[in-house]
Amino acid sequence: MGDRCFYRVTDMTPVISSYEPMRHDGTMPLTRAGRPRLTAQRRPGTTARDEILDAAGELFTTQGYAATSTRYIAESVGIRQASLYHYFKTKDDILCALLSQTVSPTLSFIPALAEVQPAMTAPQRLHALAVFDGRQLLRGRWNLGALYLLPELRGAGLEPFSSDRERLRRHYLLLSQTIAEDNGVDPAAADLPFRLVEALVNMWSTPPGPQRDQLPEHVADACVRVVGVADPRALHECTREVLTSGGEESHGEIAPRMTWDTGDVVNHVNGRAPQ
Amino acid sequence: MGDRCFYRVTDMTPVISSYEPMRHDGTMPLTRAGRPRLTAQRRPGTTARDEILDAAGELFTTQGYAATSTRYIAESVGIRQASLYHYFKTKDDILCALLSQTVSPTLSFIPALAEVQPAMTAPQRLHALAVFDGRQLLRGRWNLGALYLLPELRGAGLEPFSSDRERLRRHYLLLSQTIAEDNGVDPAAADLPFRLVEALVNMWSTPPGPQRDQLPEHVADACVRVVGVADPRALHECTREVLTSGGEESHGEIAPRMTWDTGDVVNHVNGRAPQ
Repeated sequence: MGDRCFYRVTDMTPVISSYEPMRHDGTMPLTRAGRPRLTAQRRPGTTARDEILDAAGELFTTQGYAATSTRYIAESVGIRQASLYHYFKTKDDILCALLSQTVSPTLSFIPALAEVQPAMTAPQRLHALAVFDGRQLLRGRWNLGALYLLPELRGAGLEPFSSDRERLRRHYLLLSQTIAEDNGVDPAAADLPFRLVEALVNMWSTPPGPQRDQLPEHVADACVRVVGVADPRALHECTREVLTSGGEESHGEIAPRMTWDTGDVVNHVNGRAPQ
Repeated sequence: MGDRCFYRVTDMTPVISSYEPMRHDGTMPLTRAGRPRLTAQRRPGTTARDEILDAAGELFTTQGYAATSTRYIAESVGIRQASLYHYFKTKDDILCALLSQTVSPTLSFIPALAEVQPAMTAPQRLHALAVFDGRQLLRGRWNLGALYLLPELRGAGLEPFSSDRERLRRHYLLLSQTIAEDNGVDPAAADLPFRLVEALVNMWSTPPGPQRDQLPEHVADACVRVVGVADPRALHECTREVLTSGGEESHGEIAPRMTWDTGDVVNHVNGRAPQ
């Protein structure tokens, strides 16, 4: 790893291109084509579905899942309850869609990581994966990962979220097992990197600023240390290359994260429509 | 650390001596003195307060906090709602008492750790603390840590739990900062050991067996690795000594954990009253 190498991600799947962040002044960028509605748009998003999810994300994480009715969600969006049912049949469906937002982007990122040239080592992949995944967990407007432990999740029809999360867990596990074995670390440690990244859910309320921005990197360092990598600093350059390959613009679909340090909310779209 | 040294804990505070586990056949050991009541005892515990907490722990973690009324809790214990109010004024009070169970035993253990002779090194203390704390989080009948992210926690009168948890977090932080500094690790990593132990909340549903039993040790290893300790195995003997010092019996009040590996639920009390 002495030579500087330029990792290129060859396959980028736009996962969350419909996302539009709130502006610095708290208003929403209203860029979508006109659709008749009774009230002005109150929520970020280019579709009514996005707005419903934003409202549900706020209400579930601040008022509680049990205490939030679909009627309350519809009112919070400014649409009729009947319109909401056009997009989601049940409250569980909304919960499932929200939870999926916490894993889908990272799952889509995994094949891209596998195709990076030159091929990444297992520690490089785990580190980059953890940084990407950690940013996803921290970047939303609501702490959706806090919904993981809801009692209502038991027995609820939460597919495809449940199997998606399990796929993601297994991917972490296999990568981590490889690294632990190479370093002579007890294989039982291999489950912990996934758990460490999810622990960001408990750190979500860290005040905006450089400390919060750097959490995913610190967690990624911890992930590789846990499986026996003595000096994670050697992995930083590779992770930075991978997560910015192709330039900020084309990479936007993968990591359009909010930057909090200046108080601004900046995103790759930045005033123009996704390509 | 070449010589075998016998760590002794000189101050043991009985924290959870009133706890009595469910028997293998699902019945409760009914050892307390007769107290007139309308129904047979349904819940473990030597006091009505314990029974109320057990019922609330089950209902909050399986039905949800919002969906559980104090009346429902009283019914689940087999007492009148008025009797419940004798012990807890509000549902928040019950929640606070439950949450305190997740931190109080470990907070009481910290002064004992500080008095161990010969004095422990910082990595030894962090490791033993993490094992003890992790066992506490896993040992209960209900996953109380899952209540940490309840929206209802915001603004609720959850003292002394909130400040207790913050005290515990700061203790981890200071220990971890010392170790990180000694190992040239970024000080930002020092917040992660506490988070790693709390991640056991997400692993609580691991099926009973040796794998679950060993989780606290693996998490403790990960905690010290995160702050730069290359080989945690050197700490295992010290942790074992500290957590069993004075023999299993006198140590019961500190770490009377359930062992799940045979399907039995065994506790140090094992048929006799705590001394």
